[in-house]
Amino acid sequence: MLRMSTLLLRTLRDDPADAEVASHRLLVRAGYVRRVAAGIYSWLPLGYRTYRNIEKVIRDEMDKAGFQEVHFPSLLPREPYEETNRWTEYGPDLFRLKDRKGNDYLLGPTHEEMFTLMVKGEFSSYKDLPLSIYQIQTKFRDEPRPRSGIIRGREFVMKDSYSFDIDDAGLEASYQRHREAYIQTFNRLGLKFNIVSAMSGAMGGSKSEEFLAPCPTGEDTYVLCESCGYAANVEAMVTKVAAYSGSTPPPLEVFDSPNTPTIDSLVELVNSRYGEQITGADTLKNVLLMADGEAISILVPGDREVDLKRVGANLAGVQDLRLFEDEDFAKFPGLVKGYVGPQDAERLGIKVYADPRIVIGSHWITGANFREKHARFVTHGRDFNVIAFVEAAEVKAGDPCPQCDTPVVIDRAIEIGHIFQLGRKYAQALGLTVLDQNGKSQVVTMGSYGIGVSRAVAAIAEQSYDELGLNWPREIAPAEIHLVAAGKDDSIFSFAEKLASDLEEAGLTVLFDDRRDASAGVKFKDAELIGIPYIVIVGKSLAEGKIEFRVRSTGSKVEFAADSAVAEILNAIN
Amino acid sequence: MLRMSTLLLRTLRDDPADAEVASHRLLVRAGYVRRVAAGIYSWLPLGYRTYRNIEKVIRDEMDKAGFQEVHFPSLLPREPYEETNRWTEYGPDLFRLKDRKGNDYLLGPTHEEMFTLMVKGEFSSYKDLPLSIYQIQTKFRDEPRPRSGIIRGREFVMKDSYSFDIDDAGLEASYQRHREAYIQTFNRLGLKFNIVSAMSGAMGGSKSEEFLAPCPTGEDTYVLCESCGYAANVEAMVTKVAAYSGSTPPPLEVFDSPNTPTIDSLVELVNSRYGEQITGADTLKNVLLMADGEAISILVPGDREVDLKRVGANLAGVQDLRLFEDEDFAKFPGLVKGYVGPQDAERLGIKVYADPRIVIGSHWITGANFREKHARFVTHGRDFNVIAFVEAAEVKAGDPCPQCDTPVVIDRAIEIGHIFQLGRKYAQALGLTVLDQNGKSQVVTMGSYGIGVSRAVAAIAEQSYDELGLNWPREIAPAEIHLVAAGKDDSIFSFAEKLASDLEEAGLTVLFDDRRDASAGVKFKDAELIGIPYIVIVGKSLAEGKIEFRVRSTGSKVEFAADSAVAEILNAIN
Repeated sequence: MLRMSTLLLRTLRDDPADAEVASHRLLVRAGYVRRVAAGIYSWLPLGYRTYRNIEKVIRDEMDKAGFQEVHFPSLLPREPYEETNRWTEYGPDLFRLKDRKGNDYLLGPTHEEMFTLMVKGEFSSYKDLPLSIYQIQTKFRDEPRPRSGIIRGREFVMKDSYSFDIDDAGLEASYQRHREAYIQTFNRLGLKFNIVSAMSGAMGGSKSEEFLAPCPTGEDTYVLCESCGYAANVEAMVTKVAAYSGSTPPPLEVFDSPNTPTIDSLVELVNSRYGEQITGADTLKNVLLMADGEAISILVPGDREVDLKRVGANLAGVQDLRLFEDEDFAKFPGLVKGYVGPQDAERLGIKVYADPRIVIGSHWITGANFREKHARFVTHGRDFNVIAFVEAAEVKAGDPCPQCDTPVVIDRAIEIGHIFQLGRKYAQALGLTVLDQNGKSQVVTMGSYGIGVSRAVAAIAEQSYDELGLNWPREIAPAEIHLVAAGKDDSIFSFAEKLASDLEEAGLTVLFDDRRDASAGVKFKDAELIGIPYIVIVGKSLAEGKIEFRVRSTGSKVEFAADSAVAEILNAIN
Repeated sequence: MLRMSTLLLRTLRDDPADAEVASHRLLVRAGYVRRVAAGIYSWLPLGYRTYRNIEKVIRDEMDKAGFQEVHFPSLLPREPYEETNRWTEYGPDLFRLKDRKGNDYLLGPTHEEMFTLMVKGEFSSYKDLPLSIYQIQTKFRDEPRPRSGIIRGREFVMKDSYSFDIDDAGLEASYQRHREAYIQTFNRLGLKFNIVSAMSGAMGGSKSEEFLAPCPTGEDTYVLCESCGYAANVEAMVTKVAAYSGSTPPPLEVFDSPNTPTIDSLVELVNSRYGEQITGADTLKNVLLMADGEAISILVPGDREVDLKRVGANLAGVQDLRLFEDEDFAKFPGLVKGYVGPQDAERLGIKVYADPRIVIGSHWITGANFREKHARFVTHGRDFNVIAFVEAAEVKAGDPCPQCDTPVVIDRAIEIGHIFQLGRKYAQALGLTVLDQNGKSQVVTMGSYGIGVSRAVAAIAEQSYDELGLNWPREIAPAEIHLVAAGKDDSIFSFAEKLASDLEEAGLTVLFDDRRDASAGVKFKDAELIGIPYIVIVGKSLAEGKIEFRVRSTGSKVEFAADSAVAEILNAIN
């Protein structure tokens, strides 16, 4: 039994200065976590009980699915990460250190290499596969901007699983098993979530989905079709376009366009000079980027911005992507800033990619590659060609759903899980092969599956809190019953003490507010802030043989006979 | 249910090359742990289950004792460790690193500072105390010589508790509560242990005891009196001496002593020249040391060596202790190497300490501080004085027990726990004060209590293994029943399959050896190596309606009727 009189807990009336999101504010105020450094938190007793309840649900569900638990160290030698090139690729997000002998180590940000090597060390035959193993472990990432309390920290706990299969069909099956296990897990945690298509991004590999918990302050933006249920990470949203169906455009025509620094001014000039009714959507923006040191141009309709994260996620193999800077322009004197067009790309030494909206046959108003000159009827496939289409334009609410054409909505969420067909990248780099049925060596194909364990505490808080405080689902809460002794009489305290023991005896976990020096008002406020799902009050009405039972989430209150309190409480909550 | 056919496990027939102790050898061979780097290990499924069982026992016992669980990060900012001076004091054992902004961090080797600051952040009154809080957490220490597998690693898990009290009596009570909880815990873990007096050493503070698990390959040496039960760490062993009871010695007499480079040669010279029967025990050794840059001499009887660890642990406040080197002699030209005596200490600028055996009034043969000259009848209190007595001479088996004079034995052990009255050092340094009943600010007094959680896996293995392999107590074992399907017939496998489910249904955990491609011999050998306490064999005798039940620890075998196997097994083990 937890007792408020001895619990290491001081609730705070005021919000912490650095808290932007509700979960952070309330977890600090209710005495669940304390900040140690940027993105680094300690858990107080109530917080750690909550965390452990979540960990238990996740472990149960992983075990039920037949995944085997292992455990790796946090302190890892450089060599395996060198072999996969991640020692370098990870950049400043990786915490690196040296031991007393000067050897290089890192703090594991994720454990692909270690899992791969572990399986390599034990297994060697197709008969050993499929295998799915997991760990629940502390991860370290030196986030540039740790924020939102435990949602994006620099030290946090993840459940990470890996699957190992001999072939793609096996991987697909393992992937589906994890997907099912994740659905079970998040349902049991009481989280509302959407499964959205995601890009595999920097991890290499193919199919990938994210489990996103909708939340207005979430860091992740995703696209949702409320009609057919299509959901995608913004990076993964597929643009639906129709083939060009207009008539063949007139030949390309260059025209003078002084004083047109913006799309709007260009549109105005064209409309007034040619009596047209064009909009920004009829112009073509040439956004110049440096991709791993190579100059590229991305074509998007003039009424859209380029979303660099979308480009990055969709342009295979590119590590470092950034906008052109003045010094880049200096290296390409043919590029006339503000008047770039895709017509002379080859001459200019630029690789051109187009957003899918720039369909073949369509014509555009764009720069003429001369100062103060634009061109119109610039036609894709006739006047310019592109290396490839790439999803590049920002996604907007109202864009058509790629499945059913319904306008999509854009929502915010917290990423709580990610499942991922990793493929053979790590197995290849680290030499994880097994012999197949014919005795031939085959590179193993892997899946990678993650759940943010410590983050889930915040995600559940975000989805369940109200204006009074936290509000936990029963399986997650630090206790099931918050029992308040409200009053001054010894009889109240002795009855409450007995009731607390009886409830624990009946198998419930109880937080007993046995404080003698706190007012009933303070106790009620604390109970609401702490967010345990059922509040039992032993107070003045005990004299009439009554106790009060409240449900934290609904605020409903009923009186029970004190004599049969345990039975009535059990009945009410089960 | 665990199945050998799918378990991530390959047992090894050969000992790993780097394994010196049995637990290391067997935990690797039985597929419990794998080495990642020096002193850094991964846990395979069987190992992690064992580890978690131990963790569970420890957590249960801490919770039962009313200690509250919290959790701190591993990655800690420098500042608090700067305030207690441990950022520097910890030396090269501390893993230090910088974040992307260049700020200093460390990997927590122990969390005194964090616990102190957590309590400081929440509590402010004597009414909040006593408080005992604990965590089960990964620790990092850059051991100069990581060894013995998980016994002395660089990344390992500890349960560390701290108690907070307003006064010494409170600390003593908290200390006793932890002592009791530790006794319960280690009993439940099936560990044999001695509680031995220990020195507080580098941690500052006063009373301290270690829980040592006797084991022939243990790193710790301790003294045990088999008569009265007195037990002490070698550093803490107290020397029992009688007051000098001989007659007053003649005046100090200097004599020529050429060619006496050793104690033996000196003894021989004295005995032949003066017709005496002295031994090395009648001579006085002056062992010169540098203690934090200051020259000191330690006097011990000539038949004993100085134990630097004993001196270090008993010489209050000294951080850095080492033997004199030639360059030190150069700084003290009055010191004649090989002929040093305590008579002229003040003139020579040396501080003299004596082992308790150098009682006041006793006389000795020692150096005369002149080349090739010694002196006899050199009398403590007449011819020389010392600053203090200090426990300095090595402890030998047969030394008298300080409590009952019985000759003690010296034994080896693994340290599994340490309890410790820390006092006010950390509270003082970090400003942890509370108001007492009179509204006066009081520095809190603390206790510190540790259990090596991952190390306990090895300690239990060391105390229970036999020539066949590991041999776990039931509550610790990765499963309770190791069920072997031995044979080729489908009927054996289908019966075993059913039995495995039934046993699990009856609440037992089962490792089912369902491999079709392994021989019965291999399966038996694996079962013995893995060390699950009860082995059930479904084999040829199934045809006669029998199964076999073995107890791993005793090797006893009985047959049970296959029909009533579950009931008979339950009956046999409960």
